[in-house]
Amino acid sequence: MKPVPIAELRAFVIQVLERCEVSRPDAETTADVLCTTDSWGVFTHGTKFLGDYTRRLRAKGVNPRGVPRIENSGPAWASIDGDCALGMVTAVFAMKQAIAKATTSGIALVTVRNSYHFGAAGYYAWMAAAEGQFGIAVANAIPSVSAPGSRGPVLGSNPFAFAAASAHEGNMVLDISTASVAGGKVMVAAAEGKTVPSHWLVDSAGKPTTDPNLFLKLEAFLTPMAEHKGYGLALMIEILSGALSGGAMRNGIGRFVDPPSKPSNYSHAFLAINPAVFLGENVIGGRLDELFGAIRKVPTASGVDHIMLPGEIERAKQEKALAAGIVFPPDVTEVHRAIAAEVGCPIPDFLK
Amino acid sequence: MKPVPIAELRAFVIQVLERCEVSRPDAETTADVLCTTDSWGVFTHGTKFLGDYTRRLRAKGVNPRGVPRIENSGPAWASIDGDCALGMVTAVFAMKQAIAKATTSGIALVTVRNSYHFGAAGYYAWMAAAEGQFGIAVANAIPSVSAPGSRGPVLGSNPFAFAAASAHEGNMVLDISTASVAGGKVMVAAAEGKTVPSHWLVDSAGKPTTDPNLFLKLEAFLTPMAEHKGYGLALMIEILSGALSGGAMRNGIGRFVDPPSKPSNYSHAFLAINPAVFLGENVIGGRLDELFGAIRKVPTASGVDHIMLPGEIERAKQEKALAAGIVFPPDVTEVHRAIAAEVGCPIPDFLK
Repeated sequence: MKPVPIAELRAFVIQVLERCEVSRPDAETTADVLCTTDSWGVFTHGTKFLGDYTRRLRAKGVNPRGVPRIENSGPAWASIDGDCALGMVTAVFAMKQAIAKATTSGIALVTVRNSYHFGAAGYYAWMAAAEGQFGIAVANAIPSVSAPGSRGPVLGSNPFAFAAASAHEGNMVLDISTASVAGGKVMVAAAEGKTVPSHWLVDSAGKPTTDPNLFLKLEAFLTPMAEHKGYGLALMIEILSGALSGGAMRNGIGRFVDPPSKPSNYSHAFLAINPAVFLGENVIGGRLDELFGAIRKVPTASGVDHIMLPGEIERAKQEKALAAGIVFPPDVTEVHRAIAAEVGCPIPDFLK
Repeated sequence: MKPVPIAELRAFVIQVLERCEVSRPDAETTADVLCTTDSWGVFTHGTKFLGDYTRRLRAKGVNPRGVPRIENSGPAWASIDGDCALGMVTAVFAMKQAIAKATTSGIALVTVRNSYHFGAAGYYAWMAAAEGQFGIAVANAIPSVSAPGSRGPVLGSNPFAFAAASAHEGNMVLDISTASVAGGKVMVAAAEGKTVPSHWLVDSAGKPTTDPNLFLKLEAFLTPMAEHKGYGLALMIEILSGALSGGAMRNGIGRFVDPPSKPSNYSHAFLAINPAVFLGENVIGGRLDELFGAIRKVPTASGVDHIMLPGEIERAKQEKALAAGIVFPPDVTEVHRAIAAEVGCPIPDFLK
């Protein structure tokens, strides 16, 4: 594969979304989220799902002209109805609200209902960190993960992201699934005809399986991260997003196999904390320099250069991608090709 | 062992603390936290550490007359200096502040510096749930946990707790260490002369070990929960507690082996969310009935009665303890006996 310049990928995504009746500003916002995620090398959450988005946009299960609306708010909180718009559009809007409110209130929580798949939670957490704040982003999802003792799915892979920036010692962007592994990785294994480790999946009897195809057929489910701990965190996320937003929970959320005309109604929650309110201006950057710098100096096991911060690998990939373009795995390139054909837009140079 | 009535245990703890110059109200607060934790069967975080507290109280490393003070605050936040008082005293004070502020602000975050070991994080999260809110409690601790690739400790076992109450379908109290296992469990294995699973500890070369005694000698360290995920969550907690409070971080925190006259300076953070502000009065209880009730009905694997909520086992133990007393493991009873001798108080009936 030849490297894809980010600007060309972004232009392609915007063009695709505009052909699905998404407004130019919303198409740009969505393209920024998806292309940044791809630049991190997180291909399971970038443009790979664009084909699902376009299918639902055209069938109006995702509302191309949806406008997220603040239903209720106070100085430190807001609840938003996503109007079934693209998840990225609503999530960016919601995190901007949280950041603005935390600027003066010190902390703000914004809940979202009636949204859609929002991609990588880390993007929204990072939005706060880029403004000198701490950011947390969570979302519920279609139940696909078992709980200890279950023989069916109990909760979604409900992601959790946290980000914070130091002054000179780098940044952290933690973005984790509360499943033992991302569902996307099981799909990759299935696409590549490989088996998966036996602790990733349980079958419909509650027993371990190594067959990723069972997951695609909804006959196997992810295990939770660290057993009861991941289940507990996923339940907390379901409460903060689904229950607290007044939106859909668990099986109330649309499935990937549902007709594309059906709204999916994912729920999200975004938290921003402004350290300047707690510590005064220009203090937290140095505190995190001290913390991150000390961690880098911890003695390492043989063959390990230094202890990495969460997200450090992705930041290094991003630098490379900004300089030399993104090298996609073949399955994502196939998605790009299929979308170009589907919406009937000119084949971009990077696919020629 | 004969069961210990909770009221007798509570009276004993109060008497012990008063003999260490702790005020009656602060002794009662601390006794409530420790005895409730024991009633949950969480013996690693209850009265078992009381001997460490009394030793430090008498040597003034923990300030028996310490009074936590709000240093700065706004409608949705506060930062507290713990004045080196008992961790339970300061943590209860801080969570009460968070709950009061969240009642009107919808959400509130309270940071704490210059505190001490606060016992079970779940107690403080539960304080918010008991008031119809959601509670989160976190704390940093002495580095004892490795990070992926390290051959030394990087962060503490930094606990995370979340609690929420439904109207009729029970409650959840998630209280997890971000280590693969609680340090207390390694100490129990060492005391019982047992080995531990090889994924619990790494030695000072960064290699797995099954010898719990190396952990006591600071020659082995806990592994993080779910590898990079637990490390990332622990780092987030270090930021929210240590960095954001302006207090001690990592090795700035006192060690168990330090002289008892030295302040320990743990940092904490407490978050409260009032769902009534987001959803209106009396809505969240029913939302959580729907969520928890549905989870109870998920089909279970052979031999499993139902999917449990986080903390359900502990709540069942508490009901039993309230009715019939607490049956302690021998090592905790030994601690009780040693403390009675140390502070020179009458031997309580339950130790006779």
